Amino acid sequence: MGDVKLLADERVDQLYSQDIQIIQSSQVFSFSLDAVLLANFAKAPASPKGKLVDLCAGNGAVGLFMAPRTRGKIAMVELQPRLADMAQRSVVLNDLADKVTVYNQDLAIITEQIPKDSIDVVTCNPPYFSDLPDSKKNPNNYLAIARHEIATTLNTVLATTSDLLKMNGKAYFVHRPDRLVELLALMTANRLAAKRLQFVYPKAGRDANIVLVEAIKDGKATGLKILPPIMTYDDHGDHGEYSPIIHKMLYGESTTNE
Amino acid sequence: MGDVKLLADERVDQLYSQDIQIIQSSQVFSFSLDAVLLANFAKAPASPKGKLVDLCAGNGAVGLFMAPRTRGKIAMVELQPRLADMAQRSVVLNDLADKVTVYNQDLAIITEQIPKDSIDVVTCNPPYFSDLPDSKKNPNNYLAIARHEIATTLNTVLATTSDLLKMNGKAYFVHRPDRLVELLALMTANRLAAKRLQFVYPKAGRDANIVLVEAIKDGKATGLKILPPIMTYDDHGDHGEYSPIIHKMLYGESTTNE
Repeated sequence: MGDVKLLADERVDQLYSQDIQIIQSSQVFSFSLDAVLLANFAKAPASPKGKLVDLCAGNGAVGLFMAPRTRGKIAMVELQPRLADMAQRSVVLNDLADKVTVYNQDLAIITEQIPKDSIDVVTCNPPYFSDLPDSKKNPNNYLAIARHEIATTLNTVLATTSDLLKMNGKAYFVHRPDRLVELLALMTANRLAAKRLQFVYPKAGRDANIVLVEAIKDGKATGLKILPPIMTYDDHGDHGEYSPIIHKMLYGESTTNE
Repeated sequence: MGDVKLLADERVDQLYSQDIQIIQSSQVFSFSLDAVLLANFAKAPASPKGKLVDLCAGNGAVGLFMAPRTRGKIAMVELQPRLADMAQRSVVLNDLADKVTVYNQDLAIITEQIPKDSIDVVTCNPPYFSDLPDSKKNPNNYLAIARHEIATTLNTVLATTSDLLKMNGKAYFVHRPDRLVELLALMTANRLAAKRLQFVYPKAGRDANIVLVEAIKDGKATGLKILPPIMTYDDHGDHGEYSPIIHKMLYGESTTNE
């Protein structure tokens, strides 16, 4: 492992399933299950010539988690300098500097550095909330920018995704189901044809709280598939444990009841 | 029960859960699980003044199945004379003539008979396929018209739904997931805001093959909910039995393992 320095509020967590270490901070940014789900859902380019870009990269969770699954190159794009720095140090920590590049840049102008129509796969876990935060919701500015559409918008994310992708390149997003209609409409407007959706439910009997989306640039408008549902927690009483599929994403091994 | 005549190819089937008898014909039209799912998903207007319209009514399955659950009036709109006649005789068979009216009419001009902005709830199980049938797929013209967009289109169905509904009236559709993006886009274009989606899967581990949609006329564009998944069959070996929830929809009682 590379040698990196941690700031006072930082810690190193591990995603055991991918043997990846990641610098986190409860005061700045920690990855959520959504990042794990997105990294697991997305298909990394197989070829050594393959290029993947992760937008709204945060502390680099999605790109780091996908790194072991591709021989291609990964670019992470993160606007906030502190988060981009955490991502960069995690890249070094995992000896991935020859595979992963971190861009501390606004995604709206990233095509000045990464050529248009050059990317095989784009992933993004964007800010979920279109409304601006009130001070009660997010007194923390790092989290406010990561979660609310303050510094970017869903349309900008999708336009940039489409710009970066080659024809028939694939995009993978994670979002909240309550914005699904808007997400699909903006995808269509940005030449991204939805091909697969997968809904994630907290547990049996509850509404979905996460949607995973695969799209193809300039793909046909028909042929959408809805993959089998994912339950986050098992339905055993009030003290649910992670379901086998989630447990495997996190720890790389299934529980006995899978 | 009313006294009706059956044609040579016809039989009377029963939906036990609602104690409804329905005239069917394997050569003309028989209701599918989709109709049962739609009737179960839709909320009938509670008030005696409530008005429900079922478009693309076929042999009347959806309207008949909902009749026991409303004190309001139900109108069925069916283009094909033979199917509308089957529906009308089923209405008489179930002594529902004071509650249910059958219109043998093209839905595109039904607002000549049913006033615009007057309906509380619209239900529709439309033709699923936008392509025209080849002779191999559907040598049977009754089924071809019911399943393919020969006599109507999804946009016409949605425009008529929107025309019929009062402001904040509710629409319920059943469709195939592979047309979900188009369905949601056309709903938006016709002032129908998606509020609830529910996906139906043949069994665990398989992609969804049915989607149920609830929309509100002139509703807000946000706040979509994805309801818990429905599995059609239990996952017990190759000879699956209906899941408890489907069994209950059909037979009105749960199995022991629910």
